[in-house]
Amino acid sequence: MKTYTECIPCFLRQALQASRFASDDPSVHERVLREVARAVSTMDMSKTPPEMGQLIHRVIRKETGIDDPYAVVKRRFNDLVLELYPRLKDKVAGADDPFETAVRLAIAGNIIDFGGGRSTDAIDVERSIGESLTKPLAGGALELLRSAADEASDILYIADNAGEIVFDRILIEELSPERVTLVVRGRSVLNDATIEDAGAVGLLEIVDVLPNGSDAPGTILDDCSEAVKTRFAEADLVIAKGQGNFETLSNVSRPVFFLLRVKCEVLAREIGYELGSVVVAKV
Amino acid sequence: MKTYTECIPCFLRQALQASRFASDDPSVHERVLREVARAVSTMDMSKTPPEMGQLIHRVIRKETGIDDPYAVVKRRFNDLVLELYPRLKDKVAGADDPFETAVRLAIAGNIIDFGGGRSTDAIDVERSIGESLTKPLAGGALELLRSAADEASDILYIADNAGEIVFDRILIEELSPERVTLVVRGRSVLNDATIEDAGAVGLLEIVDVLPNGSDAPGTILDDCSEAVKTRFAEADLVIAKGQGNFETLSNVSRPVFFLLRVKCEVLAREIGYELGSVVVAKV
Repeated sequence: MKTYTECIPCFLRQALQASRFASDDPSVHERVLREVARAVSTMDMSKTPPEMGQLIHRVIRKETGIDDPYAVVKRRFNDLVLELYPRLKDKVAGADDPFETAVRLAIAGNIIDFGGGRSTDAIDVERSIGESLTKPLAGGALELLRSAADEASDILYIADNAGEIVFDRILIEELSPERVTLVVRGRSVLNDATIEDAGAVGLLEIVDVLPNGSDAPGTILDDCSEAVKTRFAEADLVIAKGQGNFETLSNVSRPVFFLLRVKCEVLAREIGYELGSVVVAKV
Repeated sequence: MKTYTECIPCFLRQALQASRFASDDPSVHERVLREVARAVSTMDMSKTPPEMGQLIHRVIRKETGIDDPYAVVKRRFNDLVLELYPRLKDKVAGADDPFETAVRLAIAGNIIDFGGGRSTDAIDVERSIGESLTKPLAGGALELLRSAADEASDILYIADNAGEIVFDRILIEELSPERVTLVVRGRSVLNDATIEDAGAVGLLEIVDVLPNGSDAPGTILDDCSEAVKTRFAEADLVIAKGQGNFETLSNVSRPVFFLLRVKCEVLAREIGYELGSVVVAKV
């Protein structure tokens, strides 16, 4: 997906938020914003938004010296969702359709997203659970996903954010973890899940976890390790979570199942489902 | 008031909104945003936000060839509030304290502000009337304003936005128009009131109207005509409406009464009253 003009104010908001998480010094925030503004003024809009996100977070690391400005909020959301985990597991166990419930919960977790400078206040996990369990599913691909999952012996599951990966764990457990490889980001960027987050929520003990070798808040295949590229090409089924993965993988040559909540108007227009939609789409 | 880092994403949002009002061509929006981003990357943050606003709207006029992108929404809000005018006049006439009611209504009108790329949906005039009539006044200067108005024979009233000026007309009628000179912007910028708007809402027939000679969405005195500078220095009482005027006049050497609603967190912090406050302040 290309970058739209509407993404530009969001890049600046994102840069402001991350610089504030990293530093209390307004002169640091100012330097970051100026550098991001300069990059925006000449950026290639045919590239995907996570490519600019990657650049923004490199600027932030360089200007602040802080490797992971989102460490605190990532930990907070991992812990928060771990507390919900037993209740969510009960919900799946007691459901008429445990697979659908696990898919819907995985999508519920996608609300935990600081992309575009979204504030912590906008991240209402309980509300997202309620909506994701009850809204009609958009995208029309639940049954296709169910069949593909029934047949697959090698599932690549591309994670999105910290906190959200506890919800992913529930779906992975439903898929049976021995068939699944979980791909996480190669290093800290935004509130995206890394191998440390996978460890923090117990995923390392139940599933193979593969860091993708990249510091982009999405999956830019050209920037990923050879191992990830190969697995991506060869897996029986690829499931990708969230907006950053959609933006970077919606135009690749193999089919991918996207699970996400629509959280901005640009994505709503691109994917064709309204803001707030609970989406299972095959692209 | 200086420019804060939080203002930067708003500048870009503003530029996007105005370029969309002016043109349907995404390549035009892109050129505007790139040029504004470039300007932001080197801007002098000690300057006031309306100084950047002035530059943004010059870029928009240059890139789109459209002199007044907000013409349609300005007309819409002038017409909308003119329809409310008889009811609002009745409210003042029937009030225990007609002066306070007229002041509160003038502040209610300050919700009609497209600054920072605020969307039309965020401009709920009826709600603002309700809140402005009932909330406790912040700023503590209502009685000071009443006394100053009682004694003044020469009142300079600096308008802010189209639509809003119909509310201003009600307060000006309460102050008695023969004592008042109304200052408007020197040319179209954002949804700010110009002499055309003053004419459209009947103000030219009841009060002296003085365009300020500037194309900034505020009152940058150095950029105003000599007539405005002199009147500003010599008037018995200066009343200034809204955020753009506050941002540009809060540090000048003479006392000014500011009437406004607090519509962003940066102003809330600067002025010391929370978001949504209904403010009569003497600075």
